[in-house]
Amino acid sequence: MLFDKKIYQERRERLRRLVGESGIVLLPGNICSPCNFPANGFYPMRQDSTFLYYYGLHREGLVGVIDLDTGEETLYGDDVDIEDIVWLGDVESVATLAASTGVNVSKPLGELQAQLEQARRAGRRVHFLPPYRYDTKLMLMDLLGLHPGEPQEEAVSMPLRMAVIAMRSVKSDGEVAELQRAAHIGYLMHITNMKLARPGVIERTIAGTIDGISYAHGSMPSFPTIYTQHGEIMHGMPTTEPLCDGRLLLCDCGAESLEQYCSDNTRTIPVNGRYTARQRDIYDIVVEAHDHTLTVARPGIKWRDVHLSVCRIIAARLKELGLMRGDVDEAVAAGAHALFFPHGLGHMMGLDVHDMEGLGQRYLGFDDEVQPSDQFGLGSLRLGRRLQEGFVVTDEPGIYFIPALIDDWRSRRHCEQWLNYDLIETYKDFGGIRIEDDLLITADGCRYVSDERIPYYAADVEAFIAANR
Amino acid sequence: MLFDKKIYQERRERLRRLVGESGIVLLPGNICSPCNFPANGFYPMRQDSTFLYYYGLHREGLVGVIDLDTGEETLYGDDVDIEDIVWLGDVESVATLAASTGVNVSKPLGELQAQLEQARRAGRRVHFLPPYRYDTKLMLMDLLGLHPGEPQEEAVSMPLRMAVIAMRSVKSDGEVAELQRAAHIGYLMHITNMKLARPGVIERTIAGTIDGISYAHGSMPSFPTIYTQHGEIMHGMPTTEPLCDGRLLLCDCGAESLEQYCSDNTRTIPVNGRYTARQRDIYDIVVEAHDHTLTVARPGIKWRDVHLSVCRIIAARLKELGLMRGDVDEAVAAGAHALFFPHGLGHMMGLDVHDMEGLGQRYLGFDDEVQPSDQFGLGSLRLGRRLQEGFVVTDEPGIYFIPALIDDWRSRRHCEQWLNYDLIETYKDFGGIRIEDDLLITADGCRYVSDERIPYYAADVEAFIAANR
Repeated sequence: MLFDKKIYQERRERLRRLVGESGIVLLPGNICSPCNFPANGFYPMRQDSTFLYYYGLHREGLVGVIDLDTGEETLYGDDVDIEDIVWLGDVESVATLAASTGVNVSKPLGELQAQLEQARRAGRRVHFLPPYRYDTKLMLMDLLGLHPGEPQEEAVSMPLRMAVIAMRSVKSDGEVAELQRAAHIGYLMHITNMKLARPGVIERTIAGTIDGISYAHGSMPSFPTIYTQHGEIMHGMPTTEPLCDGRLLLCDCGAESLEQYCSDNTRTIPVNGRYTARQRDIYDIVVEAHDHTLTVARPGIKWRDVHLSVCRIIAARLKELGLMRGDVDEAVAAGAHALFFPHGLGHMMGLDVHDMEGLGQRYLGFDDEVQPSDQFGLGSLRLGRRLQEGFVVTDEPGIYFIPALIDDWRSRRHCEQWLNYDLIETYKDFGGIRIEDDLLITADGCRYVSDERIPYYAADVEAFIAANR
Repeated sequence: MLFDKKIYQERRERLRRLVGESGIVLLPGNICSPCNFPANGFYPMRQDSTFLYYYGLHREGLVGVIDLDTGEETLYGDDVDIEDIVWLGDVESVATLAASTGVNVSKPLGELQAQLEQARRAGRRVHFLPPYRYDTKLMLMDLLGLHPGEPQEEAVSMPLRMAVIAMRSVKSDGEVAELQRAAHIGYLMHITNMKLARPGVIERTIAGTIDGISYAHGSMPSFPTIYTQHGEIMHGMPTTEPLCDGRLLLCDCGAESLEQYCSDNTRTIPVNGRYTARQRDIYDIVVEAHDHTLTVARPGIKWRDVHLSVCRIIAARLKELGLMRGDVDEAVAAGAHALFFPHGLGHMMGLDVHDMEGLGQRYLGFDDEVQPSDQFGLGSLRLGRRLQEGFVVTDEPGIYFIPALIDDWRSRRHCEQWLNYDLIETYKDFGGIRIEDDLLITADGCRYVSDERIPYYAADVEAFIAANR
């Protein structure tokens, strides 16, 4: 448990006020997720982030219920028996767990249905969040009679969803400290990659080794580690191929702390330790874009505007290299730059690496003032609305040369007034570059979440590699 | 793909013959399993073992359909679009995947429902296996109108289940070669633990590091790594506590090869490098029990009888130490030894570490001749029936002193004529010991799956630690 129980009590009390409606709040924790058979065939247990935020408990199979009208709280869960103790060891009773997070009443899971049915018979609303695990969908189906298809989404409680988003979006000092613990593990992962990578080593050997660092120091990787010599694939997974002299290696990875807070960084390093002149030309644009964010991100600014300002830098510099042409502002407005930068500048980060993405991007990242776009590229921006103090966002510009996308756009003559396709064709073997760090929005600007810097200026990367191989 | 497509074609053809009924076989592959949010919030993709056995394909979201009457085969799956290519890279078309495994027809997933409805309208049976993932349960619900509760189990096709069990139970030479690749990774994991373990090191630091070896060399651990100074907890997970001078450390782990075949070994080593005399007394009994299996396991013998012979060795030796008393055969028949050895001697291993456990222990491990027991201890034996050439089983005896179980039994005076509770009480701080290796049943006996031996004789363990720390 990360915090004192008072924190969790206060959070739940504030949640009640923010929901501002009558009814019952249902907050299911996660269960173990089956991998290839039911018993013992599990992936590592990973608690639901919202449940963790309000209860701080990692045990599987718990469900929190809050009566919005009376304030009565119940933690549902099943105690272990002697057979469980033989296999899994003795664990605290559900009553003890409940008390540890300031909940007075605990009951077996089997009694949950009765409480919900009683509430529904009395015409009271059961507030729940969008389920993302199939077992939770099934549970909601059995408890509330909702088929796990689209209609379930409509039954989701908007007041509960918006209250949780409002609370989890702003990180406390204690949460930032935990994010820094995750950042330290991520630092070790990246530094280890820089030390181990060289021509001939198998991609998965290093990717698995740095994943091991996350298991050794924290909980697990915060997402499947992206590790590829084809950086132009946004989520390229490590293969059993060796690293090649002359290629760029993109590593986008992070760890979860023991309390499941995340880190998320990307570095793109030269396999042989030195960027070529052509690689360096593109790399330094990404560095400039990355650093630009630090100078403009602050409370009150729309993240979409930060994203667009970075897009303009990328377009202007690519124009200098002859890869783009024409008016930069018009090019970015038309989305021409998205041929090279097809994703968003960054996303929120916290207890989820894409924080609260499961609550709905539309509600999390946008509002009445800033609406999501359906333009290719801008449509992948996961956050658009105004920043607030305490937000944590990733800053992750990139430039990619994606052969299939180049062919697709060129065949449709898409944005050809801003794109020099003849020159772009010659970059089809380039790959892609991304540089990513995590920023905390402060009262008057922003700063890196962690002071521990993974080298990213080209000269620093080359010097680090030279000194550590 | 592990084998040539001919192998997969032959397997499916043999499956058709073995099922020996009319209708349609439905073999769903797995999809990515959500961890803490829907998109990119995934656990590592892990293909369904039975799907892998019959198709050899690792792509998520595929469904195999075999018409038992016409022999017509269809692979259902969705091709990627340009947006998928940007994020995940270009991949082979479903048609190409189908052809690679010898299936002539491929269709989009959306057409599966129509084929099944047509079959059902024609009164044809849809044969499927017990689903263990919740998304598969939901899919079967939508496709076949089955609520994912108990009734679904009754709808499972017994002929299909028994045909798959018959085929997957006997490993080919090619499968054994892949099991040896998994064994090599498991060897590296255990050897690394022996090198790193010493007083003061945090349990999770080493457990995470050896998990990293599985990710670096293969796919993933074959199950959540058991790593504990409380070996008396069968599935004790690594904590953030340091290793302690004088304790025993039980490490039960394994890896999956790139083609998802498993290894599973256990070693119990002294944290400080030397077993105490008291530890050694118990340890050597477990060694004797472990080695005994190798001398008796052979085709035709009931695995339950091998288990019981090991139980008698354990009981006889514990009697010599004064912990048990009375007639050994009577003690074992009454289950008195299960206070110390509450689990089965071993389970099948293959594409699942508990091979085919998801198909139902009752059908997998037992038959008309050998029925499962509900006696404590013997009831945890996952395999009882006669061994056949080509079976792969784990050999994993153990002796544990479980305080809660000792208290429970003593308070009920359970089996007290065979148990010296006064002396047993003095072992409550002991912990537990297990030694586990994987055996291949050969034509006239058995052998280790792999020739690479992780040290386990006490003197070998001590010598290895002395030489490698």
